[in-house]
Amino acid sequence: MKQVSQRPVLAVDLGGTKIVAAVVTPTGKILPRSSCLTLADKGPAAVIDRLISVAGSAVDRAKLKTADLDGVAIAAAGILDTARGVVTTSPNLPGWRNVHLRDIVAERLNVATCLVNDASVAALGEHRFGVGKGLANLIYLTVSTGIGGGIIVDGKLYEGTDGCAGELGHMVIDAQGPKCNCGNYGCLEVLASGTAMAKEAVSRIRNGGASLMVQLVGGVLDDITAETVATAAREGDLLACQVVNQCAAYLGVGLANLVNIFNPQLIIIGGGVSRMGGMLLRPARKVVKEKAFRLPARTVQIVKSRLGYDAGILGAAAYVHEQKLKETTR
Amino acid sequence: MKQVSQRPVLAVDLGGTKIVAAVVTPTGKILPRSSCLTLADKGPAAVIDRLISVAGSAVDRAKLKTADLDGVAIAAAGILDTARGVVTTSPNLPGWRNVHLRDIVAERLNVATCLVNDASVAALGEHRFGVGKGLANLIYLTVSTGIGGGIIVDGKLYEGTDGCAGELGHMVIDAQGPKCNCGNYGCLEVLASGTAMAKEAVSRIRNGGASLMVQLVGGVLDDITAETVATAAREGDLLACQVVNQCAAYLGVGLANLVNIFNPQLIIIGGGVSRMGGMLLRPARKVVKEKAFRLPARTVQIVKSRLGYDAGILGAAAYVHEQKLKETTR
Repeated sequence: MKQVSQRPVLAVDLGGTKIVAAVVTPTGKILPRSSCLTLADKGPAAVIDRLISVAGSAVDRAKLKTADLDGVAIAAAGILDTARGVVTTSPNLPGWRNVHLRDIVAERLNVATCLVNDASVAALGEHRFGVGKGLANLIYLTVSTGIGGGIIVDGKLYEGTDGCAGELGHMVIDAQGPKCNCGNYGCLEVLASGTAMAKEAVSRIRNGGASLMVQLVGGVLDDITAETVATAAREGDLLACQVVNQCAAYLGVGLANLVNIFNPQLIIIGGGVSRMGGMLLRPARKVVKEKAFRLPARTVQIVKSRLGYDAGILGAAAYVHEQKLKETTR
Repeated sequence: MKQVSQRPVLAVDLGGTKIVAAVVTPTGKILPRSSCLTLADKGPAAVIDRLISVAGSAVDRAKLKTADLDGVAIAAAGILDTARGVVTTSPNLPGWRNVHLRDIVAERLNVATCLVNDASVAALGEHRFGVGKGLANLIYLTVSTGIGGGIIVDGKLYEGTDGCAGELGHMVIDAQGPKCNCGNYGCLEVLASGTAMAKEAVSRIRNGGASLMVQLVGGVLDDITAETVATAAREGDLLACQVVNQCAAYLGVGLANLVNIFNPQLIIIGGGVSRMGGMLLRPARKVVKEKAFRLPARTVQIVKSRLGYDAGILGAAAYVHEQKLKETTR
């Protein structure tokens, strides 16, 4: 591994809702963040303008100039061709098709830049600074609007040939299942994400089920989110508990697959839905014990993310620091 | 990586039907093989006796003594705790539960011995000597009675924490599907293996389907194997073609999952069923193009094994030569 550099880097998280940027020191200290709304519907050019502006503001807040940085890492969801620095497609960024984001940002900021999947860098963040510190291999799964993944093998981020490995949310676990945003059927994401949870709750209520959730959203069923489900379940709402259990069972099937495939030391569950904690993880772990082979099921620990949102920022910074500047442009 | 040693090794393939042993030179030349029936129903002790005897015979045929060897690799199907050299369970070896095979063989032959999964070493064999030579990452899938897998990452065999990674046949792809030998439901193996193919053919015929296969087995439907299906399909038998297509479609779903997870350069299909060639691989590749993300689907090549049965023998030898003696006992 390349020697860890001694200069700070800028980490930018390009999400479907927000863009967050922060300078990170080589020891993993996150300096004050800047953020703005993504306004993804304005299209790529407008989003990139906002990204450049929020990046500049984060560098200013760190009292630095871009010339002081070792590099910039942009973490984004979607199918990224990291070798070429291209967003080929992204579910949360409608209209983005083969956007050469890395080179555009590198040119506008005049700093070496790399582009990397958000869940992959979150895996790296948890490995370098979080609950997976020092382990040889682990799997990270972010469960929120969608489901993303990151794979650490031999202490290193596994990116695959083009840099788009780890699309664990688009592992088909129920070939006869419902259609997923990716166009395929029965993906883990369409069965166990936060979106899936909310959808299942609404469907059960529309089919006549009684639930506290109706009150929680003032009767506007479309306002039900995974958080609504979690709140109701914590109050003992039966329908909400059934929904959580169903999604946890599917999550367990996906996790059992990962256990049989990777025989990992650790699986880390991050993303907004992971805040449900034991309510989600306990039934999912039970399914893993039932469905995966005994030896790898006994070995694996399945835990909540320790760093939460910071995993991505810290991982993006680590990515630049450790290995990737050689593959970037200036 | 450790320096490749200059002495020959003994590779033993412990299958459910046969035990095959051969001395392999450091350059990958397989010296004359010895083999015997496994007679698995006689239980572990009897099988181990036969294994020792066939191992000795292979060393004799190479005009060597065990002291001339760098080590012995035993490749076996099943969930192996390779770090401890234990067969924890194996579908093809009924009655084997936590058998310390590595240490027993090491002691009886008085040679450093290691135990490793048969599909894993086949992956290694194809990587070192076959169609995957020199690639950074690839996936090997053996489709025969069952479905096994091997994973090459960064030019090295990925074994996971206990050494049992790569159980790709026990990835659930249809959670509502039929029960698998492993106790789980809808695994790739129960939907796309040779056994699955034969079973599906028999079931369609029992439900009134007409097929050339009935003649091919002289009316004894239980004699139908994947080979019968292949023969009939090559003759244009409609029912046989439908069965092959159905299993190929499920295989395609499994392969698409692996493409999304690993973004590999290459997937190699080995095992007896792979001898069907294009008849199986063409529809499976089509499903991958439809179901996996475009970027990794465009990158991956899906090809037949080049080494066939030798992949396991060569891979087992390479395994000993390259890295594993440090973890073995004498």
